[in-house]
This record gives sequence, structure tokens and C-alpha cells, in this order.
Amino acid sequence: MSSIFSKIVAGEIPAYKVAENDRFLAFLDIFPIQRGHVLVVPKLEVDYIFDLKKSDYTDLMAFSYDIAVKIKKVIKCNRIGVAVLGLEVPHAHVHLIPINNERDMNFSNPKKTFTAEEMQEVAQMIKNA
Amino acid sequence: MSSIFSKIVAGEIPAYKVAENDRFLAFLDIFPIQRGHVLVVPKLEVDYIFDLKKSDYTDLMAFSYDIAVKIKKVIKCNRIGVAVLGLEVPHAHVHLIPINNERDMNFSNPKKTFTAEEMQEVAQMIKNA
Repeated sequence: MSSIFSKIVAGEIPAYKVAENDRFLAFLDIFPIQRGHVLVVPKLEVDYIFDLKKSDYTDLMAFSYDIAVKIKKVIKCNRIGVAVLGLEVPHAHVHLIPINNERDMNFSNPKKTFTAEEMQEVAQMIKNA
Repeated sequence: MSSIFSKIVAGEIPAYKVAENDRFLAFLDIFPIQRGHVLVVPKLEVDYIFDLKKSDYTDLMAFSYDIAVKIKKVIKCNRIGVAVLGLEVPHAHVHLIPINNERDMNFSNPKKTFTAEEMQEVAQMIKNA
């Protein structure tokens, strides 16, 4: 069965996309812990990130680098944090999270809720950064 | 003033090293949140990780990939989590943390304490993996 991220890649489930090429996709986390919280995934469905070939892993990180720089340009924050846990969805993904302090990247924080318009606006800002 | 990590790189402060080349160094976090918690740093002292050149960032991630694979071989865990926050020490560093669930990578968890012998043993196991 396809992961929810593969369904997003295939266009079967909508997402607030911020960047895409033939191998990687970045979109807003639908359960963000901060405004501007982005997920970056390889289109290849692999559960554990270190099961990606090393070159795919570093290319995923290179793609994420560009997104992190863009998020920082448009979301007011101290810096962009990076996290890979991979325990919720069995499809490798990199979290990019605007943070001001350590607690801002605590995944047990309550999720933030935004309207569809707010999500679309943030996605568009990052895309255009 | 040199960061504490630059002092470790220079050999002025001891560390439980697990891997090193001319550009990167990996050693045990002295305040681990899990057993086998490793920090990977560029020898070049840069505060914010996304201020590294993109090629330095991806090379740091490639170096970290090899360490993550080694940690997973010798520390019993579900997977290796990756985190970059960078708010405590002004020298970019990648956390590699053995995790079984989301809470295991919560940085507000109490730090674990190990004896010098236990730290040395873990470092040696990862180094030899």
C-alpha cells in the first residue's frame, strides 16, 4: 500500500506544495508544530531514511538546504531546525522547522492550526522566496 | 573565541571520538539524551548550519550517514534520528540519536549519565562497527 506521502506525490491527496523536482517534494506539514513547518520527502518510497542510498540521502539533504534557506527568508525565526524521526509515517521525511528556542522543536508540543488560506499563503511565500 | 567544539577539534578538550577526517569530526555528546548519542561537526567553525556552503552541508550529511549506519549496528534501537537545532553551542552540529519512539528525541528529556568507561566503550563500539 502506498504511504500517505506517496499519495501526495501521486496527486491523489492534496498538499500545500512549496518545491518539487523529479526526485523530491517539499510541502507544509499538515500537523505543524510551528508556522512554516515543512516536510521534504524523496519520491521513492523508503521507510527508514538511512535505507536510502547515500547519494539519494545527500541529494535529499541538498534539496532540503534550498528550502531551509527560503523558509528563513520569509518566516520570522532565529533559525531553521532539522529533524528526522520517521516513526509516524513509513516514508522517509525531513522536518524543517522555524525555531527560536529548543522547545520549539519538541514534537510533543500541541500542533498548531491554521486555516486553508493561511496554509496556502505560507506555502506561496516559501515558494516565491 | 573558539567554540567548545573547535577546542575538541584542536585537541584542547578531550572527547569520545567515533570518526574523523580532515573536514569533519564525530564524537559522543557529553550530555546524551540516549546511549549512543553522537554529535557530528564540521571542523570549520560556523554557527548556523545553513550558513555552511551547500557542498559543505551535504558533505557533512554524507559523513553523518556513515556514522548513523554504524551506530544502528551496535546500539539496539528502532532507528537513528537526526536533529539540528544549534541553539546551545554556536558551532553547527548534527545530533544522531538512537530512538525507539518520538519521545526519545525530546531534548527536554533528562540527560543520561554514563561512566567514563561506559562512554569509552560505546565510542569504541561505534568506531569499530
